[in-house]
Amino acid sequence: MQIAIVLYDRFTALDAVGPYETLGRVPGAETVFVAEQAGPVRNDSGNLALTADRSLADVPHPDIIVVPGGPGPLPLAADGPLLTWLRTADATSTWTTSVCTGSLLLAAAGLLKGRRATSHWLALEELERHGVEPTGERVVTDGKYVTAAGVSSGIDMGLMLLGRIAGDDHAQIVQLATEYDPQPPYDAGSPEKAPAHLVELVRTHSGVILT
Amino acid sequence: MQIAIVLYDRFTALDAVGPYETLGRVPGAETVFVAEQAGPVRNDSGNLALTADRSLADVPHPDIIVVPGGPGPLPLAADGPLLTWLRTADATSTWTTSVCTGSLLLAAAGLLKGRRATSHWLALEELERHGVEPTGERVVTDGKYVTAAGVSSGIDMGLMLLGRIAGDDHAQIVQLATEYDPQPPYDAGSPEKAPAHLVELVRTHSGVILT
Repeated sequence: MQIAIVLYDRFTALDAVGPYETLGRVPGAETVFVAEQAGPVRNDSGNLALTADRSLADVPHPDIIVVPGGPGPLPLAADGPLLTWLRTADATSTWTTSVCTGSLLLAAAGLLKGRRATSHWLALEELERHGVEPTGERVVTDGKYVTAAGVSSGIDMGLMLLGRIAGDDHAQIVQLATEYDPQPPYDAGSPEKAPAHLVELVRTHSGVILT
Repeated sequence: MQIAIVLYDRFTALDAVGPYETLGRVPGAETVFVAEQAGPVRNDSGNLALTADRSLADVPHPDIIVVPGGPGPLPLAADGPLLTWLRTADATSTWTTSVCTGSLLLAAAGLLKGRRATSHWLALEELERHGVEPTGERVVTDGKYVTAAGVSSGIDMGLMLLGRIAGDDHAQIVQLATEYDPQPPYDAGSPEKAPAHLVELVRTHSGVILT
């Protein structure tokens, strides 16, 4: 089994590394980071680079596709090599997945038309504009398409899908080994839970605050 | 303010990226990945490489030090350039922090002697052998030393420390922006919660299962 995690300029690191540390633990699977060209790829803040060990062309038919998000507007949503690759790879994939605004790339490639999916809470309206039915759930499965909400939700998505593929025991082993027993010091992880003035602040100034 | 996240051969990626996406959002801070030599550094599974943009020598006095862990035995726990750098950098740091078995490196450098600290649940006994008082808490603060439990706990540690440094509002903004509203599909994230036969399996075969 081959798992391809897609990197592109200005991706969000935790979107990629969350599923990597969970879903990437499918026994016997080969996990490979891919990008249009092999080599280091810079993230949204520019101070982190993850290496794409293979080019998209080198990995045409992964069994599982993982597409992380990045702060919008996503420069690569314009039709180009990444969307072309996504369509081709999706034609033979067993699972096609995304974290955060990665679902906008899947949608832009035409893969989520008429399906239920999710994204970062700030991107749900844009998802709808692509003909997708957005939901506020943290992880959404519709057929072979599994989409996760913002950034950190890729960990939950990765564990869920790992359980589907490798069994509940194995997924729990990975949860235990990564000591994923979350104890956030605040309860502000969704727009429903965070103080209203902070939700408004992020809604209007997210780009300024976070990069 | 300068935040140095230390990389070394066979580090665990999420240990580094969890604090990076949270603590790394201190307004105006410069976050830099460092290693003995600048360049790509491979993780524990060997299929992920993060770039160290600077060498340890280039970053002698960071304000915050973050040391991720890796599956033991840690090859770098032997006294060498990393431990020497840790001692020097710690002499002027405001905060010295670790995730997972990163605390064993701090302990090996002699920085945690007589202090309360934590580590991956499988490493608490080894921590005690270094003259440290181990605790089962997820995040432990003792003076300027902040240690976190296994792998994913670095996210909680990063948010907690971000709140201490930049205020509760800013930490909650980052929690909201990263949609850190965890909903693990299982409740197996600690040895107290996971099924006993899986705890035993990880205890005896963790290296086999996870790499």
